[in-house]
Formats: sequence, structure tokens, C-alpha cells
Amino acid sequence: MAKFIVIEGLEGAGKSSAIALVRDFIEKKIGTVPVCTREPGGTPLAEKMRDLVKITDESDPLCDEAECLLIYAARAQLIANVIKPALNRGQWVLGDRHNLSSLAYQGGGRQLMPLVESVSAATLKGFKPDLTLYLDIAPKLGLERAAERGALDRIEQQAVDFFERARRTYLNLAATDDSIAVIDASQSMAAVHKDIIAVLQVQGW
Amino acid sequence: MAKFIVIEGLEGAGKSSAIALVRDFIEKKIGTVPVCTREPGGTPLAEKMRDLVKITDESDPLCDEAECLLIYAARAQLIANVIKPALNRGQWVLGDRHNLSSLAYQGGGRQLMPLVESVSAATLKGFKPDLTLYLDIAPKLGLERAAERGALDRIEQQAVDFFERARRTYLNLAATDDSIAVIDASQSMAAVHKDIIAVLQVQGW
Repeated sequence: MAKFIVIEGLEGAGKSSAIALVRDFIEKKIGTVPVCTREPGGTPLAEKMRDLVKITDESDPLCDEAECLLIYAARAQLIANVIKPALNRGQWVLGDRHNLSSLAYQGGGRQLMPLVESVSAATLKGFKPDLTLYLDIAPKLGLERAAERGALDRIEQQAVDFFERARRTYLNLAATDDSIAVIDASQSMAAVHKDIIAVLQVQGW
Repeated sequence: MAKFIVIEGLEGAGKSSAIALVRDFIEKKIGTVPVCTREPGGTPLAEKMRDLVKITDESDPLCDEAECLLIYAARAQLIANVIKPALNRGQWVLGDRHNLSSLAYQGGGRQLMPLVESVSAATLKGFKPDLTLYLDIAPKLGLERAAERGALDRIEQQAVDFFERARRTYLNLAATDDSIAVIDASQSMAAVHKDIIAVLQVQGW
């Protein structure tokens, strides 16, 4: 049965190279490339919602609740029009972020956990990835790496405290959910990739 | 203390002329015009969310859950950046639709009441209008009137069943909430306006 695998982590944790690695692993395992998604976004309308989350409008700053609800609107759209249809066709799906990001960033970072948990439960109704690889990195190191890539967006410009809370939330949730594997992303890329492959190989797929 | 008054009703119920009437009433009563809002929308970002609700993209149809969450994102933005600041400054607010529309259209019409109730409670945390004037009309009559105005949008093109469910929800909610007044909008405009003024005059403002 087709699986839904998600890569999670703070900015600069190395998600992009991990995605390329897992994509290759899946292609070798099943002979076809997975459907790759990114969140928020991943459908024409969901990408427009992403744009609204990313832009900075000083005359009309996006309030935290609207940010959270926009991200869930985009997620509902992506699940309905991309993820579930792919899984139903037997295609694997590889996600660059999913619900855990909202729990970590909006729930932990923005301290809106009651709203996030309520909207998450009502929107997803139990739908979740088969496996999440969480690339764990100290915010300071991750943000240094992310800054080297170029200008930071509205969310990437939050204070380090925000990312510390997001990281704690990621780690707390991983500790109580067997479907979330924690990878030490402060290691060399080779060591990170070795750990990811080890996690993939012990799955019962 | 400044009040938040909302006009609700199906398409073609006569909301626009009711809004003009209530606006004049407020202006005479307190000497300044109220802040007028429309939903979804009413801030630059919320209007962009409204656009996403209104457009039809056949390659990526907006799913019902995303529609609901987008509307609540827009509402959160409008409350945070327009409605609450106005009330806090002592300005009255007059709304063209608010939360009752979501309960009626997305909860009743789309049959998503558990999602709507959950998101509504978590987003609004008890914030609600001081008075809602619900203009009640049979869907068939209202849609005939709306069609005379021009092309119908994505939501206005729903089947009559959708609007029948929305109307039942409006009436059921009005029956258990003293802050919602039901106005018979099938009457002549003069009679509708007389009923609206009568409701406004018995308020203890």
C-alpha cells in the first residue's frame, strides 16, 4: 500500500537534501518517483494561500490566528486534491512539511496550541503520515545556515525564542508518537543521510 | 459603549438596503457613521482570501473544508485589525455578514457543522455581535432577486437544497439566541425597513 512520508524540521535543518535522498530511496524501492508536495502550498489555490502567509503587509499585519487558519485551509486543499488522490491511485507521497509544522510553529512558536489542536482534529479527522522524519537542529545553527541561502521570509524572521519553542514542541511530540523519527541534523550531511536510510530500512514496507 | 451590529441573510434578501438603513439610524443616534465591514473580506489581506473563496478553478476545485477555513482566516484578520480596534476606539461597527453566515452556509449548507463549530469556538473565543438582523427569505425568491443583479458567483450557484439547509440553520440558531432578530424579508421594502427600525428602537442603547 502506498505510503505518505514527511520531512520536518526548522529552517536550515537540511530538509531539501533529505527530501532528495528519500525520493531516491522510494524510487529505488518501488520503481516510480513519489508525488512530492510542499506545505503550505502544493496546489494552485494552496500556493496562493502560501503567498498570503509569506508576505509582509505593514498596513494589515497577518494576525496569528489567520496565519494558522490559512495554513490549514491550504492543507485541507492539498490533502483533498493531491495527497489522498495519489495514495488512492497507489502512488507514494513525500511531503516537505505537514501537520507537525503547524503544531510546532503555530502551536509551540505562536503559542496557539488550543486553536491548532482544535482545527487540526476537525480538519484532518485522524489522517496522518505513515512516517515523519524530523531533522532536529538548534535554532541558532539552523538560522545561520538558512541565512546563507538568502533573505529570510516573514516567519523565518521571528526571534530565536519562537524557534526554541517550536523545537521543544517537535521533540515533545516525537517522544510520544512512534511514527516520528528524530534525526540529529547537526551532524555532517553524510551522517544525517546514513541515519535517515537506517530509519527507512527498518520500516516494515 | 460602541456596538457591533450585523446584517445577515441569503442572497437577494435585501441586505444592501438594510445596511444603508441601519447605517443612517446609527449615524442619527450617535452622530458619526459606523465602520462598515463585509465578510469574507474587509481588510486588504482578507479581501485576497475572499477572492480565493469566490473564484472557480476547475483544475483545483476549492474543497469545502478549505473554503470554511479560508473564511475563518479572513474573519480572524478582520476582527483583529478592524472590528476590535474600532470598538476599542468607541466606534460602532456595522457588518455585512459575520459568523452566523458560516454556521448557515458552511455548517448547514455544506453540512460541515462539526468543523464550523470547532473552528468558530477556537477562533472567536466568545466574541460576537451585540445584535444580528437576519433577513429571512425563501431561497427561490431570494435567488430570483439576486440573479436580476447579474451573474451569480461560485457559492450563489449552489443548488436550492443548499440554501434551504442554510435557511433552516439561520432560523434554528435565531430561535435559541436572543441577540438574533428575524425580519420577514419577503415583505415590501417599506415593511421590512419598518420592522428593522422597530427592532433597533427596542434595544437598550
